[in-house]
Amino acid sequence: MKTLVQKFMEARKWEQGHTPKNLAMSIAIEAAELMEHFQWGDREDFTAEKLGPEKIDEIRLEAADVMIYMLSFCRSLGIDLAEAVQDKMEKNEIRFPADVERKAD
Amino acid sequence: MKTLVQKFMEARKWEQGHTPKNLAMSIAIEAAELMEHFQWGDREDFTAEKLGPEKIDEIRLEAADVMIYMLSFCRSLGIDLAEAVQDKMEKNEIRFPADVERKAD
Amino acid sequence: MKTLVQKFMEARKWEQGHTPKNLAMSIAIEAAELMEHFQWGDREDFTAEKLGPEKIDEIRLEAADVMIYMLSFCRSLGIDLAEAVQDKMEKNEIRFPADVERKAD
Amino acid sequence: MKTLVQKFMEARKWEQGHTPKNLAMSIAIEAAELMEHFQWGDREDFTAEKLGPEKIDEIRLEAADVMIYMLSFCRSLGIDLAEAVQDKMEKNEIRFPADVERKAD
Repeated sequence: MKTLVQKFMEARKWEQGHTPKNLAMSIAIEAAELMEHFQWGDREDFTAEKLGPEKIDEIRLEAADVMIYMLSFCRSLGIDLAEAVQDKMEKNEIRFPADVERKAD
Repeated sequence: MKTLVQKFMEARKWEQGHTPKNLAMSIAIEAAELMEHFQWGDREDFTAEKLGPEKIDEIRLEAADVMIYMLSFCRSLGIDLAEAVQDKMEKNEIRFPADVERKAD
Repeated sequence: MKTLVQKFMEARKWEQGHTPKNLAMSIAIEAAELMEHFQWGDREDFTAEKLGPEKIDEIRLEAADVMIYMLSFCRSLGIDLAEAVQDKMEKNEIRFPADVERKAD
Repeated sequence: MKTLVQKFMEARKWEQGHTPKNLAMSIAIEAAELMEHFQWGDREDFTAEKLGPEKIDEIRLEAADVMIYMLSFCRSLGIDLAEAVQDKMEKNEIRFPADVERKAD
């Protein structure tokens, strides 16, 4: 999906305003829009069943917006996101060994 | 990277508190931490060169945090993120044709 | 303005869903909507003059939304916001003495 | 509390980096830090009693941080926040009459 997003941006010359700072803001803005679907109500209201296919579809397109800006952001700074996730998971493996209960922090 | 994150979560039984609502919050929280690196300063301060390798490394691990929660969130609702991005990009292709200048919105 | 917001909420029985958790989410969501006005563009694009009275009016109503949820949030936990600001400013006075230049952090 | 925050900023010459754009980001960042206290757990975990005085104190200082940036932001654009809240509440009175049940939006 990385190449797809990149080509789209280049074709539209959207890259000029797409500074790392502005893209980091955009990720946060889209993340808030995603969260808005869960603003009111409790855990039991937000299962895939309760939400239903239409709402789920809205949510997945919001998730896509976060992801699209994530890819643009990473590209703007030359970050390999898949590699970053791998590295972070390795750090997490050490920080939170699998056989230890997680404490609230 | 999807499988990696999933196995990690399962091994730690972290999935209980990981409701769609809480994970949507987590994405927003991590997105804000990512944005924090760009809080002060302007466009010219945030190039890969100016930031330097150490700062870039911090930033990529923050980006990984956003991504890890994105994957957990999508999993919690059965969302295929790559497919969602593809679908959204197709909608964007129609909404913003490539040969038209983007207007500020 | 505290009493105004409180009466409004009570008259509508909105307080039920207005748990501290949901209100904290609401503050973050409204804060992102406020930030959205500044998503693209640089420092020089966002002076009161460049924005113009209409845009400023939109922005002030978004700021009001953040504030309304802030007041509801503080009320839900019995927090006196004015007192909290005073206490925090006193801590800041000690942490950042007035005659010392601020370092980026 | 407005004057208090203003004097503090002036004494430290913090106003330079404090553009409306950066301050809008700061509000969102602090709002996320506030929200972080409610990231895991449900409605019943976040009463004033369950949280306890120490946690409440942390939360009120985070709320103060949001508020301090709100005041700086409003000042940077010449917005009277109390007036904005009053105006917004009047709009809300019309939009959501007191005797009508709220519909999910």
